[in-house]
Amino acid sequence: MAPVRLNIAYHGAGFAGWAAQPGARTVQGELESALERILGAPTSLTVAGRTDAGVHAWGQVASFETGEATPPRELGRALNALTGDDLSILGVSEAGGFDARRDARSRTYCYRIMAGRVPNPFERGLSLLWPHPLDEDALDSCAAAVAGTHDFTAFTPTQTEHVRFEREVLSCEWRQGTPIVGEGRLLELWIEADAFMRNMVRVLVGTMLEVAGGRRSAAGFAALLEGAPRESAGETAPAHGLYLASVRYDGA
Amino acid sequence: MAPVRLNIAYHGAGFAGWAAQPGARTVQGELESALERILGAPTSLTVAGRTDAGVHAWGQVASFETGEATPPRELGRALNALTGDDLSILGVSEAGGFDARRDARSRTYCYRIMAGRVPNPFERGLSLLWPHPLDEDALDSCAAAVAGTHDFTAFTPTQTEHVRFEREVLSCEWRQGTPIVGEGRLLELWIEADAFMRNMVRVLVGTMLEVAGGRRSAAGFAALLEGAPRESAGETAPAHGLYLASVRYDGA
Repeated sequence: MAPVRLNIAYHGAGFAGWAAQPGARTVQGELESALERILGAPTSLTVAGRTDAGVHAWGQVASFETGEATPPRELGRALNALTGDDLSILGVSEAGGFDARRDARSRTYCYRIMAGRVPNPFERGLSLLWPHPLDEDALDSCAAAVAGTHDFTAFTPTQTEHVRFEREVLSCEWRQGTPIVGEGRLLELWIEADAFMRNMVRVLVGTMLEVAGGRRSAAGFAALLEGAPRESAGETAPAHGLYLASVRYDGA
Repeated sequence: MAPVRLNIAYHGAGFAGWAAQPGARTVQGELESALERILGAPTSLTVAGRTDAGVHAWGQVASFETGEATPPRELGRALNALTGDDLSILGVSEAGGFDARRDARSRTYCYRIMAGRVPNPFERGLSLLWPHPLDEDALDSCAAAVAGTHDFTAFTPTQTEHVRFEREVLSCEWRQGTPIVGEGRLLELWIEADAFMRNMVRVLVGTMLEVAGGRRSAAGFAALLEGAPRESAGETAPAHGLYLASVRYDGA
Protein backbone atom coordinates (compact mmCIF):
# COMPACT_ATOMS: atom_id res chain seq x y z
CA MET A 1 0.00 0.00 0.00
CA ALA A 2 1.59 3.25 -1.14
CA PRO A 3 0.67 6.51 0.56
CA VAL A 4 -0.36 9.40 -1.70
CA ARG A 5 -0.24 13.06 -0.70
CA LEU A 6 -2.76 15.65 -1.98
CA ASN A 7 -2.34 19.45 -1.80
CA ILE A 8 -5.80 20.98 -1.86
CA ALA A 9 -7.47 24.41 -2.10
CA TYR A 10 -11.17 25.10 -1.56
CA HIS A 11 -13.61 27.96 -1.22
CA GLY A 12 -15.40 27.17 2.02
CA ALA A 13 -18.82 28.65 1.22
CA GLY A 14 -20.14 25.54 -0.50
CA PHE A 15 -18.97 23.03 2.09
CA ALA A 16 -20.18 21.98 5.53
CA GLY A 17 -16.51 21.81 6.48
CA TRP A 18 -13.85 19.19 5.88
CA ALA A 19 -15.20 16.18 7.76
CA ALA A 20 -17.58 13.81 6.00
CA GLN A 21 -21.18 13.99 7.31
CA PRO A 22 -24.19 12.11 5.98
CA GLY A 23 -26.37 14.30 3.79
CA ALA A 24 -23.99 17.28 3.73
CA ARG A 25 -21.54 18.36 1.06
CA THR A 26 -18.11 18.24 2.67
CA VAL A 27 -14.59 18.40 1.26
CA GLN A 28 -13.70 14.99 2.57
CA GLY A 29 -16.94 13.50 1.28
CA GLU A 30 -16.48 14.95 -2.20
CA LEU A 31 -12.86 13.83 -2.42
CA GLU A 32 -13.50 10.33 -1.08
CA SER A 33 -16.38 9.82 -3.56
CA ALA A 34 -14.15 10.94 -6.41
CA LEU A 35 -11.30 8.67 -5.25
CA GLU A 36 -13.67 5.71 -5.00
CA ARG A 37 -14.81 6.30 -8.58
CA ILE A 38 -11.25 6.59 -9.83
CA LEU A 39 -9.64 3.81 -7.79
CA GLY A 40 -12.60 1.45 -7.69
CA ALA A 41 -12.43 0.95 -3.93
CA PRO A 42 -13.47 2.89 -0.82
CA THR A 43 -10.66 5.25 0.16
CA SER A 44 -10.20 6.95 3.48
CA LEU A 45 -8.49 10.36 3.74
CA THR A 46 -6.35 11.65 6.57
CA VAL A 47 -6.12 15.44 6.79
CA ALA A 48 -3.77 17.99 8.34
CA GLY A 49 -6.43 20.56 9.29
CA ARG A 50 -10.09 19.69 9.88
CA THR A 51 -11.62 23.00 8.79
CA ASP A 52 -15.13 23.95 9.93
CA ALA A 53 -18.10 24.86 7.75
CA GLY A 54 -17.39 27.92 5.59
CA VAL A 55 -13.64 28.03 6.29
CA HIS A 56 -11.42 28.30 3.20
CA ALA A 57 -8.13 26.55 2.47
CA TRP A 58 -5.43 27.15 -0.06
CA GLY A 59 -2.79 24.97 1.59
CA GLN A 60 -4.69 21.94 2.90
CA VAL A 61 -2.85 18.59 2.87
CA ALA A 62 -4.46 15.15 2.93
CA SER A 63 -3.18 11.61 2.39
CA PHE A 64 -4.49 8.13 1.73
CA GLU A 65 -3.24 4.61 1.25
CA THR A 66 -3.95 2.79 -1.97
CA GLY A 67 -2.99 -0.44 -3.68
CA GLU A 68 -3.54 1.19 -7.08
CA ALA A 69 -0.51 2.64 -8.81
CA THR A 70 -2.20 5.55 -10.62
CA PRO A 71 0.36 8.06 -11.91
CA PRO A 72 0.07 11.21 -9.75
CA ARG A 73 -0.47 13.53 -12.72
CA GLU A 74 -3.38 11.45 -14.04
CA LEU A 75 -4.88 11.12 -10.58
CA GLY A 76 -4.79 14.91 -10.13
CA ARG A 77 -6.51 15.51 -13.45
CA ALA A 78 -9.16 12.89 -12.72
CA LEU A 79 -9.86 14.35 -9.27
CA ASN A 80 -10.13 17.90 -10.63
CA ALA A 81 -12.53 16.66 -13.31
CA LEU A 82 -14.79 15.00 -10.72
CA THR A 83 -14.86 17.74 -8.07
CA GLY A 84 -16.66 21.09 -8.14
CA ASP A 85 -14.83 24.18 -9.32
CA ASP A 86 -14.68 25.44 -5.72
CA LEU A 87 -12.34 22.55 -4.87
CA SER A 88 -8.95 22.16 -6.56
CA ILE A 89 -6.26 19.52 -6.32
CA LEU A 90 -3.09 21.59 -6.59
CA GLY A 91 -0.69 18.69 -6.40
CA VAL A 92 -0.49 14.91 -6.10
CA SER A 93 2.63 12.99 -5.10
CA GLU A 94 3.62 9.54 -3.95
CA ALA A 95 5.04 9.92 -0.48
CA GLY A 96 6.53 6.85 1.18
CA GLY A 97 5.34 6.49 4.76
CA PHE A 98 3.57 9.85 4.71
CA ASP A 99 0.58 10.65 6.91
CA ALA A 100 -0.85 14.15 6.48
CA ARG A 101 -2.04 14.41 10.06
CA ARG A 102 0.58 12.55 12.07
CA ASP A 103 3.56 14.06 10.26
CA ALA A 104 2.41 17.70 10.29
CA ARG A 105 4.79 19.83 12.37
CA SER A 106 2.64 22.97 12.28
CA ARG A 107 -0.37 24.59 10.62
CA THR A 108 -0.60 28.22 9.47
CA TYR A 109 -3.91 30.04 9.24
CA CYS A 110 -4.67 33.47 7.81
CA TYR A 111 -7.67 35.63 8.74
CA ARG A 112 -8.51 38.46 6.30
CA ILE A 113 -10.33 41.63 7.36
CA MET A 114 -11.38 44.54 5.11
CA ALA A 115 -11.44 47.63 7.31
CA GLY A 116 -13.97 50.21 6.22
CA ARG A 117 -17.63 50.99 5.69
CA VAL A 118 -17.91 50.32 1.98
CA PRO A 119 -17.62 46.72 0.80
CA ASN A 120 -15.25 45.85 -2.02
CA PRO A 121 -17.60 43.68 -4.14
CA PHE A 122 -14.76 41.35 -5.14
CA GLU A 123 -13.94 40.53 -1.50
CA ARG A 124 -17.48 39.30 -0.77
CA GLY A 125 -17.22 35.93 0.99
CA LEU A 126 -13.42 36.19 1.06
CA SER A 127 -12.82 38.58 3.95
CA LEU A 128 -14.67 40.03 6.93
CA LEU A 129 -15.93 43.57 6.32
CA TRP A 130 -15.27 45.54 9.51
CA PRO A 131 -16.82 49.03 9.56
CA HIS A 132 -15.81 49.73 13.18
CA PRO A 133 -12.77 51.41 14.71
CA LEU A 134 -9.64 49.30 14.32
CA ASP A 135 -6.57 50.30 16.29
CA GLU A 136 -3.65 48.56 14.61
CA ASP A 137 -1.29 49.04 17.54
CA ALA A 138 -3.80 47.21 19.75
CA LEU A 139 -4.01 44.39 17.20
CA ASP A 140 -0.21 44.11 17.18
CA SER A 141 -0.09 43.96 20.99
CA CYS A 142 -2.62 41.14 21.02
CA ALA A 143 -0.73 39.18 18.37
CA ALA A 144 2.52 39.56 20.32
CA ALA A 145 0.79 38.23 23.44
CA VAL A 146 -0.50 35.16 21.58
CA ALA A 147 2.93 34.00 20.42
CA GLY A 148 4.37 31.31 22.69
CA THR A 149 2.89 28.46 24.70
CA HIS A 150 -0.42 29.25 26.41
CA ASP A 151 -3.59 27.64 27.69
CA PHE A 152 -6.18 28.53 25.04
CA THR A 153 -9.26 27.28 26.95
CA ALA A 154 -10.87 30.74 26.56
CA PHE A 155 -10.64 30.44 22.78
CA THR A 156 -12.49 27.22 22.05
CA PRO A 157 -16.02 25.98 22.72
CA THR A 158 -16.07 24.33 26.14
CA GLN A 159 -17.94 21.31 24.85
CA THR A 160 -14.89 20.47 22.75
CA GLU A 161 -13.20 17.38 24.10
CA HIS A 162 -9.56 18.31 24.30
CA VAL A 163 -7.17 16.34 26.43
CA ARG A 164 -5.00 19.41 26.85
CA PHE A 165 -5.80 23.06 26.07
CA GLU A 166 -2.19 24.13 25.78
CA ARG A 167 -0.87 24.95 22.35
CA GLU A 168 2.42 26.38 21.11
CA VAL A 169 1.96 29.35 18.82
CA LEU A 170 5.14 29.58 16.79
CA SER A 171 4.32 32.96 15.25
CA CYS A 172 1.42 35.39 15.27
CA GLU A 173 1.33 38.73 13.52
CA TRP A 174 -0.88 41.17 11.64
CA ARG A 175 0.20 42.12 8.12
CA GLN A 176 -1.11 44.54 5.52
CA GLY A 177 -2.73 42.57 2.73
CA THR A 178 -3.77 43.40 -0.80
CA PRO A 179 -7.41 43.24 -1.87
CA ILE A 180 -8.18 40.85 -4.69
CA VAL A 181 -8.96 43.62 -7.10
CA GLY A 182 -9.79 47.23 -6.50
CA GLU A 183 -8.89 49.06 -3.34
CA GLY A 184 -9.32 49.00 0.40
CA ARG A 185 -7.49 48.56 3.70
CA LEU A 186 -6.93 44.85 4.20
CA LEU A 187 -5.53 43.42 7.43
CA GLU A 188 -4.44 39.81 7.75
CA LEU A 189 -3.69 37.83 10.90
CA TRP A 190 -1.08 35.15 10.21
CA ILE A 191 -0.76 32.53 12.91
CA GLU A 192 1.32 29.35 13.00
CA ALA A 193 0.95 26.75 15.76
CA ASP A 194 1.76 23.12 16.40
CA ALA A 195 -1.98 22.46 16.41
CA PHE A 196 -5.18 24.45 16.78
CA MET A 197 -8.28 23.81 18.84
CA ARG A 198 -11.77 24.14 17.35
CA ASN A 199 -12.63 27.79 16.48
CA MET A 200 -9.38 28.96 18.07
CA VAL A 201 -8.32 31.43 15.38
CA ARG A 202 -11.85 32.78 15.00
CA VAL A 203 -12.26 33.43 18.73
CA LEU A 204 -8.79 34.98 18.88
CA VAL A 205 -9.73 37.32 16.00
CA GLY A 206 -13.16 38.13 17.45
CA THR A 207 -11.58 39.00 20.80
CA MET A 208 -8.75 41.03 19.22
CA LEU A 209 -11.38 43.05 17.33
CA GLU A 210 -12.92 44.02 20.67
CA VAL A 211 -9.52 45.24 21.85
CA ALA A 212 -8.97 47.10 18.56
CA GLY A 213 -12.33 48.83 19.02
CA GLY A 214 -11.56 49.92 22.58
CA ARG A 215 -14.12 47.60 24.19
CA ARG A 216 -11.48 45.47 25.96
CA SER A 217 -7.90 46.17 27.09
CA ALA A 218 -4.79 44.54 25.64
CA ALA A 219 -3.81 43.52 29.18
CA GLY A 220 -7.21 41.91 29.66
CA PHE A 221 -6.70 40.05 26.41
CA ALA A 222 -3.29 38.75 27.51
CA ALA A 223 -4.78 37.52 30.79
CA LEU A 224 -7.19 35.27 28.86
CA LEU A 225 -4.22 33.21 27.67
CA GLU A 226 -3.73 31.69 31.13
CA GLY A 227 -6.66 29.31 30.95
CA ALA A 228 -9.59 31.69 31.42
CA PRO A 229 -13.01 30.16 30.66
CA ARG A 230 -14.58 30.49 27.20
CA GLU A 231 -17.15 33.05 28.35
CA SER A 232 -14.37 35.50 29.26
CA ALA A 233 -13.28 35.82 25.63
CA GLY A 234 -15.08 37.56 22.75
CA GLU A 235 -17.25 36.58 19.82
CA THR A 236 -16.28 33.95 17.27
CA ALA A 237 -15.36 35.81 14.07
CA PRO A 238 -17.20 34.55 10.95
CA ALA A 239 -15.83 31.56 9.05
CA HIS A 240 -15.55 33.32 5.67
CA GLY A 241 -12.49 35.36 6.69
CA LEU A 242 -10.44 32.29 7.64
CA TYR A 243 -8.02 30.31 5.47
CA LEU A 244 -5.85 27.30 6.17
CA ALA A 245 -2.77 28.72 4.45
CA SER A 246 -0.14 26.00 4.80
CA VAL A 247 1.03 22.93 6.66
CA ARG A 248 4.67 22.34 7.51
CA TYR A 249 6.34 18.92 7.40
CA ASP A 250 9.90 17.89 8.18
CA GLY A 251 12.21 18.47 5.26
CA ALA A 252 9.71 20.61 3.36
CA MET B 1 -29.48 71.75 -10.62
CA ALA B 2 -26.19 70.56 -9.14
CA PRO B 3 -24.30 67.67 -10.74
CA VAL B 4 -23.20 64.85 -8.47
CA ARG B 5 -20.40 62.39 -9.27
CA LEU B 6 -20.44 58.75 -8.15
CA ASN B 7 -17.43 56.39 -8.10
CA ILE B 8 -18.75 52.85 -8.33
CA ALA B 9 -17.50 49.25 -8.11
CA TYR B 10 -19.51 46.16 -8.98
CA HIS B 11 -19.14 42.42 -9.45
CA GLY B 12 -20.61 41.85 -12.90
CA ALA B 13 -22.00 38.34 -12.40
CA GLY B 14 -25.32 39.49 -10.97
CA PHE B 15 -26.01 42.21 -13.54
CA ALA B 16 -27.24 42.22 -17.13
CA GLY B 17 -24.70 45.00 -17.70
CA TRP B 18 -24.79 48.71 -16.94
CA ALA B 19 -27.66 49.93 -19.10
CA ALA B 20 -31.21 49.82 -17.70
CA GLN B 21 -33.43 47.19 -19.37
CA PRO B 22 -37.00 46.32 -18.46
CA GLY B 23 -37.19 43.12 -16.41
CA ALA B 24 -33.43 42.73 -15.97
CA ARG B 25 -31.23 43.61 -13.00
CA THR B 26 -28.76 46.21 -14.25
CA VAL B 27 -26.34 48.53 -12.47
CA GLN B 28 -28.03 51.65 -13.85
CA GLY B 29 -31.47 50.30 -12.97
CA GLU B 30 -30.48 49.46 -9.40
CA LEU B 31 -28.79 52.82 -8.84
CA GLU B 32 -31.59 54.88 -10.41
CA SER B 33 -34.21 53.08 -8.29
CA ALA B 34 -32.17 53.76 -5.15
CA LEU B 35 -31.68 57.42 -6.12
CA GLU B 36 -35.40 57.84 -6.75
CA ARG B 37 -36.16 56.46 -3.29
CA ILE B 38 -33.60 58.74 -1.66
CA LEU B 39 -34.24 61.91 -3.64
CA GLY B 40 -37.99 61.47 -4.17
CA ALA B 41 -37.84 62.09 -7.92
CA PRO B 42 -36.84 60.11 -11.02
CA THR B 43 -33.11 60.50 -11.59
CA SER B 44 -31.21 59.77 -14.75
CA LEU B 45 -27.58 58.62 -14.67
CA THR B 46 -24.88 59.35 -17.21
CA VAL B 47 -21.99 56.87 -17.21
CA ALA B 48 -18.38 56.81 -18.39
CA GLY B 49 -18.31 53.16 -19.50
CA ARG B 50 -21.41 51.18 -20.49
CA THR B 51 -20.22 47.75 -19.43
CA ASP B 52 -21.85 44.63 -20.88
CA ALA B 53 -23.50 41.78 -18.99
CA GLY B 54 -21.07 40.06 -16.63
CA VAL B 55 -18.30 42.68 -16.92
CA HIS B 56 -16.91 43.94 -13.61
CA ALA B 57 -15.94 47.47 -12.62
CA TRP B 58 -13.90 48.87 -9.79
CA GLY B 59 -13.44 52.36 -11.25
CA GLN B 60 -16.78 53.17 -12.90
CA VAL B 61 -17.89 56.82 -12.83
CA ALA B 62 -21.45 58.10 -13.22
CA SER B 63 -23.12 61.46 -12.73
CA PHE B 64 -26.59 62.94 -12.36
CA GLU B 65 -28.29 66.27 -11.94
CA THR B 66 -30.42 66.91 -8.89
CA GLY B 67 -32.26 69.77 -7.25
CA GLU B 68 -31.83 68.11 -3.85
CA ALA B 69 -28.88 69.17 -1.73
CA THR B 70 -28.18 65.86 0.02
CA PRO B 71 -24.74 65.87 1.70
CA PRO B 72 -22.46 63.55 -0.33
CA ARG B 73 -21.51 61.41 2.65
CA GLU B 74 -25.14 60.73 3.57
CA LEU B 75 -26.05 60.04 -0.04
CA GLY B 76 -23.24 57.48 -0.30
CA ARG B 77 -24.38 55.68 2.86
CA ALA B 78 -28.00 55.67 1.73
CA LEU B 79 -27.06 54.28 -1.70
CA ASN B 80 -24.88 51.56 -0.20
CA ALA B 81 -27.71 50.60 2.14
CA LEU B 82 -30.19 50.27 -0.74
CA THR B 83 -28.02 48.43 -3.26
CA GLY B 84 -26.89 44.78 -3.23
CA ASP B 85 -23.55 43.86 -1.72
CA ASP B 86 -22.16 43.25 -5.21
CA LEU B 87 -22.50 46.98 -5.95
CA SER B 88 -20.60 49.58 -3.93
CA ILE B 89 -20.59 53.35 -4.01
CA LEU B 90 -16.94 54.15 -3.31
CA GLY B 91 -17.30 57.91 -3.40
CA VAL B 92 -19.83 60.71 -3.85
CA SER B 93 -18.92 64.30 -4.61
CA GLU B 94 -20.57 67.48 -5.80
CA ALA B 95 -18.94 68.37 -9.11
CA GLY B 96 -19.94 71.65 -10.71
CA GLY B 97 -20.66 71.19 -14.42
CA PHE B 98 -19.47 67.58 -14.38
CA ASP B 99 -20.76 64.98 -16.86
CA ALA B 100 -19.28 61.49 -16.40
CA ARG B 101 -19.55 60.60 -20.09
CA ARG B 102 -18.85 63.87 -21.89
CA ASP B 103 -15.89 64.87 -19.70
CA ALA B 104 -14.11 61.50 -19.70
CA ARG B 105 -10.71 61.79 -21.41
CA SER B 106 -9.98 58.06 -21.40
CA ARG B 107 -11.09 54.72 -20.00
CA THR B 108 -8.79 51.98 -18.71
CA TYR B 109 -9.81 48.32 -18.73
CA CYS B 110 -8.04 45.31 -17.23
CA TYR B 111 -8.49 41.71 -18.38
CA ARG B 112 -7.33 39.02 -15.91
CA ILE B 113 -6.22 35.55 -17.02
CA MET B 114 -5.12 32.67 -14.78
CA ALA B 115 -2.73 30.56 -16.81
CA GLY B 116 -2.79 26.88 -15.89
CA ARG B 117 -4.85 23.73 -15.72
CA VAL B 118 -5.92 23.83 -12.11
CA PRO B 119 -8.39 26.52 -11.07
CA ASN B 120 -7.67 28.68 -8.03
CA PRO B 121 -11.08 28.43 -6.27
CA PHE B 122 -10.85 32.05 -5.09
CA GLU B 123 -10.47 33.38 -8.65
CA ARG B 124 -13.72 31.76 -9.80
CA GLY B 125 -15.74 34.38 -11.68
CA LEU B 126 -12.91 36.90 -11.33
CA SER B 127 -10.48 35.77 -14.03
CA LEU B 128 -10.43 33.58 -17.12
CA LEU B 129 -8.84 30.17 -16.49
CA TRP B 130 -6.64 29.39 -19.50
CA PRO B 131 -5.25 25.84 -19.55
CA HIS B 132 -3.64 26.23 -23.00
CA PRO B 133 -0.15 27.29 -24.11
CA LEU B 134 0.45 30.97 -23.51
CA ASP B 135 3.53 32.53 -25.09
CA GLU B 136 4.12 35.76 -23.20
CA ASP B 137 6.41 37.23 -25.84
CA ALA B 138 3.61 36.82 -28.38
CA LEU B 139 1.19 38.55 -26.01
CA ASP B 140 3.62 41.44 -25.60
CA SER B 141 4.01 41.79 -29.38
CA CYS B 142 0.25 41.97 -29.81
CA ALA B 143 -0.12 44.57 -27.08
CA ALA B 144 2.60 46.70 -28.65
CA ALA B 145 0.79 46.53 -32.00
CA VAL B 146 -2.49 47.67 -30.42
CA ALA B 147 -1.06 50.90 -28.97
CA GLY B 148 -1.73 53.89 -31.21
CA THR B 149 -4.59 54.91 -33.49
CA HIS B 150 -6.14 52.06 -35.48
CA ASP B 151 -9.34 50.98 -37.17
CA PHE B 152 -10.81 48.40 -34.77
CA THR B 153 -13.61 47.15 -37.06
CA ALA B 154 -12.30 43.58 -36.66
CA PHE B 155 -12.74 43.80 -32.89
CA THR B 156 -16.42 44.73 -32.51
CA PRO B 157 -19.67 43.07 -33.58
CA THR B 158 -20.51 44.30 -37.09
CA GLN B 159 -24.11 45.01 -36.15
CA THR B 160 -22.83 47.70 -33.80
CA GLU B 161 -23.70 51.13 -35.14
CA HIS B 162 -20.51 53.09 -34.88
CA VAL B 163 -20.05 56.27 -36.81
CA ARG B 164 -16.32 55.68 -36.85
CA PHE B 165 -14.35 52.55 -36.00
CA GLU B 166 -11.10 54.35 -35.29
CA ARG B 167 -9.94 54.59 -31.70
CA GLU B 168 -6.79 55.88 -30.06
CA VAL B 169 -5.23 53.37 -27.70
CA LEU B 170 -3.07 55.39 -25.33
CA SER B 171 -1.39 52.39 -23.74
CA CYS B 172 -1.67 48.63 -23.94
CA GLU B 173 0.48 46.15 -22.03
CA TRP B 174 0.47 42.79 -20.29
CA ARG B 175 1.51 42.74 -16.64
CA GLN B 176 2.06 40.00 -14.09
CA GLY B 177 -0.76 40.10 -11.58
CA THR B 178 -1.30 38.62 -8.14
CA PRO B 179 -4.06 36.09 -7.46
CA ILE B 180 -6.61 37.08 -4.85
CA VAL B 181 -5.44 34.48 -2.42
CA GLY B 182 -3.37 31.39 -2.96
CA GLU B 183 -1.11 30.89 -5.90
CA GLY B 184 -1.03 30.80 -9.68
CA ARG B 185 0.29 32.56 -12.76
CA LEU B 186 -1.92 35.57 -13.38
CA LEU B 187 -1.60 37.72 -16.49
CA GLU B 188 -3.38 41.04 -16.86
CA LEU B 189 -3.93 43.09 -20.00
CA TRP B 190 -4.10 46.79 -19.17
CA ILE B 191 -5.46 48.98 -21.94
CA GLU B 192 -6.28 52.69 -21.97
CA ALA B 193 -8.09 54.38 -24.87
CA ASP B 194 -10.05 57.51 -25.58
CA ALA B 195 -13.11 55.30 -26.02
CA PHE B 196 -13.88 51.63 -26.63
CA MET B 197 -16.26 49.97 -29.03
CA ARG B 198 -18.60 47.20 -27.92
CA ASN B 199 -16.69 43.99 -26.96
CA MET B 200 -13.44 45.56 -28.15
CA VAL B 201 -11.23 44.47 -25.24
CA ARG B 202 -12.76 40.98 -25.17
CA VAL B 203 -12.19 40.40 -28.91
CA LEU B 204 -8.65 41.79 -28.60
CA VAL B 205 -7.95 39.36 -25.75
CA GLY B 206 -9.59 36.41 -27.52
CA THR B 207 -7.52 37.06 -30.62
CA MET B 208 -4.30 37.60 -28.66
CA LEU B 209 -4.87 34.22 -26.96
CA GLU B 210 -4.88 32.60 -30.41
CA VAL B 211 -1.52 34.21 -31.16
CA ALA B 212 -0.18 33.18 -27.75
CA GLY B 213 -1.23 29.58 -28.47
CA GLY B 214 0.47 29.52 -31.87
CA ARG B 215 -2.77 29.37 -33.86
CA ARG B 216 -2.28 32.81 -35.43
CA SER B 217 0.82 34.93 -36.15
CA ALA B 218 1.66 38.23 -34.48
CA ALA B 219 1.99 39.80 -37.95
CA GLY B 220 -1.47 38.51 -38.86
CA PHE B 221 -2.79 40.03 -35.63
CA ALA B 222 -1.24 43.42 -36.44
CA ALA B 223 -2.79 43.36 -39.92
CA LEU B 224 -6.27 43.14 -38.35
CA LEU B 225 -5.81 46.65 -36.96
CA GLU B 226 -6.19 48.19 -40.40
CA GLY B 227 -9.94 47.77 -40.68
CA ALA B 228 -10.22 44.03 -41.31
CA PRO B 229 -13.75 42.62 -40.98
CA ARG B 230 -14.97 41.13 -37.70
CA GLU B 231 -14.82 37.54 -38.99
CA SER B 232 -11.05 37.86 -39.49
CA ALA B 233 -10.45 38.25 -35.76
CA GLY B 234 -10.76 35.66 -33.00
CA GLU B 235 -13.29 34.68 -30.35
CA THR B 236 -14.76 37.10 -27.85
CA ALA B 237 -13.14 36.32 -24.47
CA PRO B 238 -15.64 35.77 -21.63
CA ALA B 239 -17.02 38.76 -19.72
CA HIS B 240 -15.93 37.58 -16.26
CA GLY B 241 -12.24 38.38 -16.87
CA LEU B 242 -12.91 42.03 -17.73
CA TYR B 243 -12.88 45.05 -15.41
CA LEU B 244 -13.42 48.73 -16.02
CA ALA B 245 -10.46 49.84 -13.92
CA SER B 246 -10.54 53.64 -14.12
CA VAL B 247 -11.70 56.70 -16.00
CA ARG B 248 -9.50 59.75 -16.48
CA TYR B 249 -10.79 63.32 -16.34
CA ASP B 250 -8.99 66.61 -16.80
CA GLY B 251 -7.34 67.76 -13.61
CA ALA B 252 -7.75 64.39 -11.91
